Amino acid sequence: VEERASSDNLSVSQPPFSSDFIAELVKLLGQSHVLTERFDCQAYDSDWTKIPGDAHLVARPGSTAEVSQVLALCSRYQVAVVPSGGRTGLAGGATVKKGQLALSLNRLNRLGEVDRIGRTITVQAGVTVESVHQKAKEFSLTWPIDLASKGTATIGGNLSTNAGGVRVIRYGMTRKWVTAIEAVLMSGEIIRLNDGLEKNNTGYDLLQLLIGAEGTLAVVTEATLKLTKRSTNSQVFFFHVPSLEKLNDLLTHAWAGPFQINAFEFLSQDCLKLVQRNLKRGNNVETDSPFYVLMEVEPFQDDLTTWMEATFEKGYATNGAHGQSPEQQKELWSIREGITESIAQVGPVVKYDVAVPVKSIAEFLNSVRTQYQKTPRQFDLYLFGHYGDGSPHLNLVKQSSASQEAFEASISTFEKELFPLLKQFKGSASSEHGVGVAKKHWVKFSRTPTEMNLFAMIKRSFDPKGLLNPGKIIDLA
Amino acid sequence: VEERASSDNLSVSQPPFSSDFIAELVKLLGQSHVLTERFDCQAYDSDWTKIPGDAHLVARPGSTAEVSQVLALCSRYQVAVVPSGGRTGLAGGATVKKGQLALSLNRLNRLGEVDRIGRTITVQAGVTVESVHQKAKEFSLTWPIDLASKGTATIGGNLSTNAGGVRVIRYGMTRKWVTAIEAVLMSGEIIRLNDGLEKNNTGYDLLQLLIGAEGTLAVVTEATLKLTKRSTNSQVFFFHVPSLEKLNDLLTHAWAGPFQINAFEFLSQDCLKLVQRNLKRGNNVETDSPFYVLMEVEPFQDDLTTWMEATFEKGYATNGAHGQSPEQQKELWSIREGITESIAQVGPVVKYDVAVPVKSIAEFLNSVRTQYQKTPRQFDLYLFGHYGDGSPHLNLVKQSSASQEAFEASISTFEKELFPLLKQFKGSASSEHGVGVAKKHWVKFSRTPTEMNLFAMIKRSFDPKGLLNPGKIIDLA
Repeated sequence: VEERASSDNLSVSQPPFSSDFIAELVKLLGQSHVLTERFDCQAYDSDWTKIPGDAHLVARPGSTAEVSQVLALCSRYQVAVVPSGGRTGLAGGATVKKGQLALSLNRLNRLGEVDRIGRTITVQAGVTVESVHQKAKEFSLTWPIDLASKGTATIGGNLSTNAGGVRVIRYGMTRKWVTAIEAVLMSGEIIRLNDGLEKNNTGYDLLQLLIGAEGTLAVVTEATLKLTKRSTNSQVFFFHVPSLEKLNDLLTHAWAGPFQINAFEFLSQDCLKLVQRNLKRGNNVETDSPFYVLMEVEPFQDDLTTWMEATFEKGYATNGAHGQSPEQQKELWSIREGITESIAQVGPVVKYDVAVPVKSIAEFLNSVRTQYQKTPRQFDLYLFGHYGDGSPHLNLVKQSSASQEAFEASISTFEKELFPLLKQFKGSASSEHGVGVAKKHWVKFSRTPTEMNLFAMIKRSFDPKGLLNPGKIIDLA
Repeated sequence: VEERASSDNLSVSQPPFSSDFIAELVKLLGQSHVLTERFDCQAYDSDWTKIPGDAHLVARPGSTAEVSQVLALCSRYQVAVVPSGGRTGLAGGATVKKGQLALSLNRLNRLGEVDRIGRTITVQAGVTVESVHQKAKEFSLTWPIDLASKGTATIGGNLSTNAGGVRVIRYGMTRKWVTAIEAVLMSGEIIRLNDGLEKNNTGYDLLQLLIGAEGTLAVVTEATLKLTKRSTNSQVFFFHVPSLEKLNDLLTHAWAGPFQINAFEFLSQDCLKLVQRNLKRGNNVETDSPFYVLMEVEPFQDDLTTWMEATFEKGYATNGAHGQSPEQQKELWSIREGITESIAQVGPVVKYDVAVPVKSIAEFLNSVRTQYQKTPRQFDLYLFGHYGDGSPHLNLVKQSSASQEAFEASISTFEKELFPLLKQFKGSASSEHGVGVAKKHWVKFSRTPTEMNLFAMIKRSFDPKGLLNPGKIIDLA
């Protein structure tokens, strides 16, 4: 009897999904588009953060109508849903817990024609960023959101995280380059926002609200993206900059230059040394300077000599390279782009994707360095990122001599100083990657209780039962 | 006794504001910043629509803290509040009903310094758009939102209506040029959103939600505006275009030209004739063409001859003028800018500020003209506006022979066809001016019941008692 009861308990105790629910899901999508084996599901567990997930059921709808039917079904059965795109996120926004359905948008991969009058393209959520770039390029156009993960990152995910990238200083974030969104609410209702309109001032901008909502308000199924002319005559500078203060001077000087700034990225001497050592790139660059800037510009005139001479005369840079050919430019970019990879080769790393007002970035970074140097640490500090956007990446890499425990304790101490400092500088705990589950703890340093309360009310307006990507951005009371 | 009762009734019957409330308001702001005489208040009744208002009490706080105190007071006394800026709106968003407090933001007129590193300026809500332009110009910068009302329109109003203007095709709407908003909720709580951050992906974008909310969610008290380089080498073309189809061809051809397009505005032959007759402008332009385009560009190279020759060879334009000097450019712009004034001289006019996807504008305008010509009308149809944004202005001007009643009946019939047509083209009932009270009736042609329901829930999240600018955009059930 004892054994029987125990066995009964096991068979009824919280099966993750009821057989009725799975049967209805299979009826909707067909057996081949419902994954039920753990082996097949585990690819959907998480994103690039590798925060552990435990997916046991994956639905792969093939149309917006099917997404709608799946969400309505989940609402009926009270099953939580995690939208899943390319899973290149860096905040755990796509992490699936046991009992949550992973909703893959990958079969929504229709890439529309380029509209040459309105300069837009309409694509489904599962299309990759790179596919959009390739299609637009045929018309000498581009969608100017450019990031390392573009071959895998999908449009649905890009919109849901309001992705940035290396050319934000010129073009801004994803939200500036979207003129329509089709999305499905948890109820199964389909909403089509703006429908490709450049202008629509009829009430609250729900389109902007869905961008950056990390799939917690609605599931993006399709979007119309705004395109722009491709930059074809860019030039790249790689400057040696003697201090953070001179970095500010250089940026101000660059704003006044005879060009548009496409990118203004910085790296510390330590980053350069790592890239040279681990990737054998940029080895002809002298490691004599505390900071370096990679600046890509689109000139208004052919000759930038006068501007460049002034840069050195005024002491904003002590040395520099000027890449005019595509090959030279690619080589200079490869230094900047190699930083993450070269850091990964060293050891465990903790990354902070923060932002402060651009005018404060030098002062903020100086404060971070002072704080770092104040007490003995079990990690090395690497500084690089989007200087011109006020968006540095702080990478804390475990020292080889330190134990994992000592490293983590050291990080924990450092964070207790870092986030109050960030708050003091009116910064953001997540400049680009979003909150997901990874940064929920830090949001309070960037957002007030009043704002968090508004978040919760907005969340409930869209998803009263709290079934859509629950536990991401906020925990509902 | 009869008389006594009557007199009592009068004295107690719904005084718009209790004397306690007024006393507390005066205590907060001082007598000189609380207007109680109808004569002083009437300027705050309405906006440029002249929709009748009836303001009997105006509060003029001098700081964000005072705005907060006034709103908290109004919440306590359940007094409805209408934020009031330059009142240049075109949808009745600032119209004050009896019993509503007009909250003037005009004393919040602090104009901050230009931040040359971050390229921003922080200003209070009551600062005019023109003041921002003048200040930015000292640094060869601009805030690229440019509209006819800029001398009077305030930043608070511009943000609250997500204003557009003549250079949207180049720069986009107001919402792309704001990096921080300080606002006060109806509860009196002050929220500071983004604080000048270029990037902040920590939760729902409340800043974007407040832009275009027409003062129904919170009162904007301060903003940080993003600035950009002033266009200094622009050139203007004024083309004669033989048809709407050729207008599309011309736009596509222009996108591929060796320049950036700053403005792509169109007008019909009738508009040109009116400007020539009523304002004596553009009289050297031949009235031989059904449509004209004013295009302002910022060239990548000095010589645009090749591009211009192709324009005529391919038949996209039959004639044209090319303004290179500032004087010539000003003269060409004065034609476009004179249309509204010259129409106003003719007689009563009804204006529709609609939008359709850019690729559909020619077809939409053709359909509107067909519909107009189908049955006898009591008005003349004038077409002009922001062609390159898919945002035409339809102006219906009373024929001198028609009675006002016949004109209005004729308009009413026309509208019953126009808005379903707009819906069919997936258009917007308000491209730029907002909804206010004037366009509430038409929103249903651009927004679904699901969207309107979300609006209502968002409104309640911010303003549960419905006291902030009530009756604008939506009526709460």
